[in-house]
Amino acid sequence: MQNFKLTLSYDGSRYKGWQKQGNTPDTIQAKLETILSRMLSQDVEIHGSGRTDAGVHARAQVCSFRAETDMDIDIMLTSLREHLPEDIGAVSLVKADARFHARLSCREKSYVYRIWNSDAPNVFERRYMYRFPDKLDFSAMEKAAELLKGEHDFTAFSSHRGNKSPVRRLKTLKIERFGDEVRFTFTGDGFLYNMVRILTGTLLDVGTHRLSPEDIPTIFASRSRQNAGFTAPAQGLILWDVKY
Amino acid sequence: MQNFKLTLSYDGSRYKGWQKQGNTPDTIQAKLETILSRMLSQDVEIHGSGRTDAGVHARAQVCSFRAETDMDIDIMLTSLREHLPEDIGAVSLVKADARFHARLSCREKSYVYRIWNSDAPNVFERRYMYRFPDKLDFSAMEKAAELLKGEHDFTAFSSHRGNKSPVRRLKTLKIERFGDEVRFTFTGDGFLYNMVRILTGTLLDVGTHRLSPEDIPTIFASRSRQNAGFTAPAQGLILWDVKY
Repeated sequence: MQNFKLTLSYDGSRYKGWQKQGNTPDTIQAKLETILSRMLSQDVEIHGSGRTDAGVHARAQVCSFRAETDMDIDIMLTSLREHLPEDIGAVSLVKADARFHARLSCREKSYVYRIWNSDAPNVFERRYMYRFPDKLDFSAMEKAAELLKGEHDFTAFSSHRGNKSPVRRLKTLKIERFGDEVRFTFTGDGFLYNMVRILTGTLLDVGTHRLSPEDIPTIFASRSRQNAGFTAPAQGLILWDVKY
Repeated sequence: MQNFKLTLSYDGSRYKGWQKQGNTPDTIQAKLETILSRMLSQDVEIHGSGRTDAGVHARAQVCSFRAETDMDIDIMLTSLREHLPEDIGAVSLVKADARFHARLSCREKSYVYRIWNSDAPNVFERRYMYRFPDKLDFSAMEKAAELLKGEHDFTAFSSHRGNKSPVRRLKTLKIERFGDEVRFTFTGDGFLYNMVRILTGTLLDVGTHRLSPEDIPTIFASRSRQNAGFTAPAQGLILWDVKY
């Protein structure tokens, strides 16, 4: 059995997220498994670096799968590109070490959240940004970002329910402005369910003075979702990079 | 009667072009006239700087219209933005001199044609570029561009039929590469029907050695459409700028 590492970009607009759900064909994983299984004439099971929610995009999602095949790797990639729908792109395909697993081997992930901070329209990128025209206090957001970084129990900043540890390390949280676009970049060893979208909503609430940077430690301590900011919509979120 | 100058951006993907056609609501002009007429409670007739074909986009199309109204201009713009569909954006709206006419007063236009010159996918901009992965000879394309520039009878490079003069002045034709993207920018006092798309197809045919730069003068002289290159698809074309 050969192990493969596949890097994908996708426009998540019309999908119910990464993970397969019963017989729904409208998930990225289901689409991929169907195409690869047909292409390689065997049942192919795919492991992603992690799930992305309905409507979330990926610039470079990584996944791994095993298959019994002697097909040339370049021909495999070309054929995969031919079969994928136009909103899922195969960026690269390489043979991987037998121990490589897209989720278990993952060391670091980056997410980017894109905000269109203007009254003026942006018709060409409207599917990939969240339109939020309110004036933002960057100095307050920078202060909040400093307090959000580091290792914390992120229970208050997630919709996570379960037995897994809610402690994560947010390595960097970068706030940038490019003209009318505001971009938050989150890098960490892992993220809880909805964590990036709630961190984004919290930063925007700080930027509009609905919350203050001083509230951040209290929100962490409360471990209560209702104290953090709103959940920013899926369409502005992009899985940017996965490191191994 | 007040005269207005409105600048629009639009994603042309789902429209049958700029110009209204009978009762089809799926043209930009028809959509706009319906919205403005309703907003201002009168029949509003809109003049664009020129038509764009089905599927062609605009970064800054300019149009003009007259209306009897004392509505505040900022409120008019906000209200227009609220009523427009998400693939048509009102960039700006200003009061114009009574003599201003978006088509008749137009002095210069720029079009950009975007080409995705790679086997790798570009899922996020797929609607706004033409995927053309063949290797391109830039030096040959530059030579052809030099010969295309200037004042010529562009009959061979258009699907134009009619009594209007086929002579146009192509002021600049810029070829640029940004990573895997190739961009042609055309500036001129006016363009014949399909001219930018046929010039683009001709440049690509030169880039792939189906035509040579030396063929350009012969194609001009022939005044025959069949001697020029193919008509590049609408989706890569963007009306970039209109000058008055």
